[in-house]
Amino acid sequence: MTHDLITMTNLVEEFNAYRSKMNEKILGADNNKIMKRIYSLDTLTYQEGALSTKVKEMLGLSTSMVLRCDDCIKYHLEKCDEQGVTTDELFEIFGVANLVGGTIVIPHTRRALEYWEQLQNSK
Amino acid sequence: MTHDLITMTNLVEEFNAYRSKMNEKILGADNNKIMKRIYSLDTLTYQEGALSTKVKEMLGLSTSMVLRCDDCIKYHLEKCDEQGVTTDELFEIFGVANLVGGTIVIPHTRRALEYWEQLQNSK
Amino acid sequence: MTHDLITMTNLVEEFNAYRSKMNEKILGADNNKIMKRIYSLDTLTYQEGALSTKVKEMLGLSTSMVLRCDDCIKYHLEKCDEQGVTTDELFEIFGVANLVGGTIVIPHTRRALEYWEQLQNSK
Amino acid sequence: MTHDLITMTNLVEEFNAYRSKMNEKILGADNNKIMKRIYSLDTLTYQEGALSTKVKEMLGLSTSMVLRCDDCIKYHLEKCDEQGVTTDELFEIFGVANLVGGTIVIPHTRRALEYWEQLQNSK
Amino acid sequence: MTHDLITMTNLVEEFNAYRSKMNEKILGADNNKIMKRIYSLDTLTYQEGALSTKVKEMLGLSTSMVLRCDDCIKYHLEKCDEQGVTTDELFEIFGVANLVGGTIVIPHTRRALEYWEQLQNSK
Amino acid sequence: MTHDLITMTNLVEEFNAYRSKMNEKILGADNNKIMKRIYSLDTLTYQEGALSTKVKEMLGLSTSMVLRCDDCIKYHLEKCDEQGVTTDELFEIFGVANLVGGTIVIPHTRRALEYWEQLQNSK
Repeated sequence: MTHDLITMTNLVEEFNAYRSKMNEKILGADNNKIMKRIYSLDTLTYQEGALSTKVKEMLGLSTSMVLRCDDCIKYHLEKCDEQGVTTDELFEIFGVANLVGGTIVIPHTRRALEYWEQLQNSK
Repeated sequence: MTHDLITMTNLVEEFNAYRSKMNEKILGADNNKIMKRIYSLDTLTYQEGALSTKVKEMLGLSTSMVLRCDDCIKYHLEKCDEQGVTTDELFEIFGVANLVGGTIVIPHTRRALEYWEQLQNSK
Repeated sequence: MTHDLITMTNLVEEFNAYRSKMNEKILGADNNKIMKRIYSLDTLTYQEGALSTKVKEMLGLSTSMVLRCDDCIKYHLEKCDEQGVTTDELFEIFGVANLVGGTIVIPHTRRALEYWEQLQNSK
Repeated sequence: MTHDLITMTNLVEEFNAYRSKMNEKILGADNNKIMKRIYSLDTLTYQEGALSTKVKEMLGLSTSMVLRCDDCIKYHLEKCDEQGVTTDELFEIFGVANLVGGTIVIPHTRRALEYWEQLQNSK
Repeated sequence: MTHDLITMTNLVEEFNAYRSKMNEKILGADNNKIMKRIYSLDTLTYQEGALSTKVKEMLGLSTSMVLRCDDCIKYHLEKCDEQGVTTDELFEIFGVANLVGGTIVIPHTRRALEYWEQLQNSK
Repeated sequence: MTHDLITMTNLVEEFNAYRSKMNEKILGADNNKIMKRIYSLDTLTYQEGALSTKVKEMLGLSTSMVLRCDDCIKYHLEKCDEQGVTTDELFEIFGVANLVGGTIVIPHTRRALEYWEQLQNSK
């Protein structure tokens, strides 16, 4: 593994480490009733149902893209990857998100593709 | 068909009539090059591909919901209906959109459900 | 009560009637698990706690204003009114929301003031 | 003048009448210091300067379009019309706004064009 | 003070140093009339009035959260801290903001809590 | 050239290097039909027409500011600079964007001015 791949994998790890650390603080706080329920609702929402988890994660990714939340995008990219979304499918999600949300979604698409490549390379 | 259903069907017709009338004006204008391309790109984006049109229309609906565009929601509800999206599936799209986008999506969900019912009743 | 006041009161009633009718449909649907939880979380969030319901409703109103959701604004105006928010306090919320959110909040402020007056007149 | 034109002109009048009525209430309120300053800043911002009022009104229109505020769009359409913006120029503003802001701007573009036609017909 | 705390305090200092440096440049520019007025309006808006500065800063924080502006959040966290907002109250603001604005507010909540902890540790 | 200027110029270079690298990846991908068209439409939209490229780039900048996309802002700052937009004109664009979009635009204005200075210094 080259130095470049190590760096890239570290970015995925970095995101997840920070995310986990701060989520624990939020969930471990004293007056966290509402936040806790939002987190548990978040888990529930993407479970298999009338729609598959795969489709729901694609909905999660596309909505995160048009709302332009890089961390949400990273999170759903990981979930989409776990659900077997292919790079061809990903590019069609990019297409819908950039069409509906406009060219302001492009910079987030650049970062999304970079993160997606890191996910693929870290396997 | 009761008076109530007639009114409801008319709302669907009203939306489509206004939409068609104004789209024609936009596409018939003199200096419409960019708008025309955006419209044709819009058609292209939702065609069958790596993802099915059905999935893409669900992406179109969920992104329209979190961006809170009632007319876009109506448009994609019709397309989802044409693609065979069920009411159970629709409610799971509502779930993702309201979770990701927050309670400000609720008023749009109310209007979406009303329009969905009109679509079902007009069959 | 003049004809004008009757009309105005009807607008408040109209909003609440539509809101109730559609909420019932959403909560009465078959596959409504996520939507139901979001509704119940919504109730929970504004209950007395470290912050008073009055303060939380003001937070609800100001966030609805910057996100420019007229129906959310109407809802929180009613709740603020119930919590004893005065017109002077309301104008300071308007100030923060229009400063933070910009002049695109002005049209929503116009409609908010109209609805607020209707609430006061309907007492 | 046909019945149709009368209706159309009335829409322009209706918007301006409501806008004026509510602005007066906002500016006539007791605790309106912040709102008053925002209104006066609004006037100041579009005055001739390093950029012409015409260019600034086009900036006002395009930003209102991507932020999807119909009333702001109507207001700036009137100002653009007063500043001599042509229909060809308007369509290029539509192009930028729909490209940057995405297809969710389309429904607002439909209503913008309708209002623009009313402005032209009411001359 | 551990190395970790030094780093954390530096983040607060870093934010404030950059903010001050660039604000000075904006306010020291030649053609800054509008920006200057917006800055002075900003100061005015949060002064004691019908609502306390504490409440207004909580409105400023919650609106910044739903609009997802990390720097605005940091600024209002500092002001809330100065106004004696407690961590329990903060979590209720987090609750409203995440409920109204949706799960896209979560990443900003993570960073907000991190900054809040730094503020507490730097005392 | 001082060390400080070198650093600053590097930031401009860094942005452009990352932007070019990722754009190439997006345009070089297999299933990139929609993204490719959006990119080519983006080029087309800002060409001379009824409005000059200079005016259109100012529209691009102001819409990017109110939508708060730092990378889009950087891109249009470069284009505005190429089109001969002066610092005085820039500040009037800042004025419109901060007025229409509110104080949440201020942090982006700080970063915009920093990038603008780097562009001027790198000449």
